Amino acid sequence: MVQLKNDERLDYLLAEDLRIIQSPTVFSFSIDAVLLARFAQVPFRKGKIIDLCSGNGVIPLILSTKTKCPITAVEIQQRLSDMAERSVNYNQLDGQINVINGNIKDMPELLGHGKYEAITCNPPYFVTPSKEVINPNEHLAIARHEILCTLEDVIRVTSRLLKQGGKAAFVHRPGRLMDILTLMRQFRIEPKRLRFVYPKMGKEANTILIEGIKDGRPDLKILPPLYIHTDDNQYSEEVREMLYGDR
Amino acid sequence: MVQLKNDERLDYLLAEDLRIIQSPTVFSFSIDAVLLARFAQVPFRKGKIIDLCSGNGVIPLILSTKTKCPITAVEIQQRLSDMAERSVNYNQLDGQINVINGNIKDMPELLGHGKYEAITCNPPYFVTPSKEVINPNEHLAIARHEILCTLEDVIRVTSRLLKQGGKAAFVHRPGRLMDILTLMRQFRIEPKRLRFVYPKMGKEANTILIEGIKDGRPDLKILPPLYIHTDDNQYSEEVREMLYGDR
Repeated sequence: MVQLKNDERLDYLLAEDLRIIQSPTVFSFSIDAVLLARFAQVPFRKGKIIDLCSGNGVIPLILSTKTKCPITAVEIQQRLSDMAERSVNYNQLDGQINVINGNIKDMPELLGHGKYEAITCNPPYFVTPSKEVINPNEHLAIARHEILCTLEDVIRVTSRLLKQGGKAAFVHRPGRLMDILTLMRQFRIEPKRLRFVYPKMGKEANTILIEGIKDGRPDLKILPPLYIHTDDNQYSEEVREMLYGDR
Repeated sequence: MVQLKNDERLDYLLAEDLRIIQSPTVFSFSIDAVLLARFAQVPFRKGKIIDLCSGNGVIPLILSTKTKCPITAVEIQQRLSDMAERSVNYNQLDGQINVINGNIKDMPELLGHGKYEAITCNPPYFVTPSKEVINPNEHLAIARHEILCTLEDVIRVTSRLLKQGGKAAFVHRPGRLMDILTLMRQFRIEPKRLRFVYPKMGKEANTILIEGIKDGRPDLKILPPLYIHTDDNQYSEEVREMLYGDR
């Protein structure tokens, strides 16, 4: 049994045959997290994995179907890490996924430098705006805006946690591509795979997926585009398979 | 009448209804130059335009159908600028296109700082390799390798020639995306439009088109992908139209 608090629901991760606790007023995962979990290359057997800014733990849950490695989920909001923990428990993944309620900036000291094989992060996308335009819901504001951690924090911390040759994968908005590439290089995570996500054919990209290798050799590949919807507003085959599996 | 030298041919630019002098052993334009000329945003009436590393002048010839502005073509190889000049003359575009045989590094002094509204450049793509692997044909080697000018030279010179608010468009290989973005920012040409060119669906990109604005506000848009071929190895509709026009 699972304990649901307030307006929480026990939603499905259909493709993975898992369940996840969500709440419309506190946190629900976005498709971007699913895209990132599918895009990231993680080792199958050897090495440790971290997901930073983990929210309700959707990325670790999806990753658990791709790897046998231990996964640490780090989330600063206690309300969210509590949801993640109960989802992990409900899916009987306590043996593989460890949820930490904490600030990512403390993790290198807590978890050690250069010990992780793969790191994922779906960070807050938006530069912190003025108080007037920020989301009055504090949970959503912290998840969406760089209030408690900036893109630079994310990439600096990732680099410290990452082993030489380890891989880090991020999802972000195209408007921050310049920043993310510059910061990755600055913190020795050489960009290697870049994929653009388009809402549909003929539209501008609205999401980027990028993976780098710590101290990797410069050689950036631009992967085929990923379309979310078809012309008639259905999910594309690729996305349908990510969300619903082969059924 | 046109004077053709050695193995030169008078080829067609079908979409533009123009002719161009080419030579298989000296220089033939590539599709990348056509893509760049179509991608670049140039003013229609007001301002001056330069094409750097102009080769046989294919980009100025195509641009002449999109603008009434004067266009300067700069090419360092005398043999190539001579071809460009005869093509311009053949098409009776001497009033609009001025071909300069010279080194791009001398152009800011010769042509003035901050005077140009739009600049295009299809630069040599490859870092200069060792003598053993370089093309023994000097004309082709100079056009393809960074022997006489590097990417940094191109972007530094472009920035000097460009007006504040003026636009610069480049074509290059994805492996150099990091370098081109970094250099553009370093020389105050803020990347604004980025388009990836894929040989066909499902393949990695092999070409990038990028445009920046001198002292522009950071806000990079990722345009819809451009596919060169369809699944059955025909030119895509978009490319067919660029090459052959609406006929």
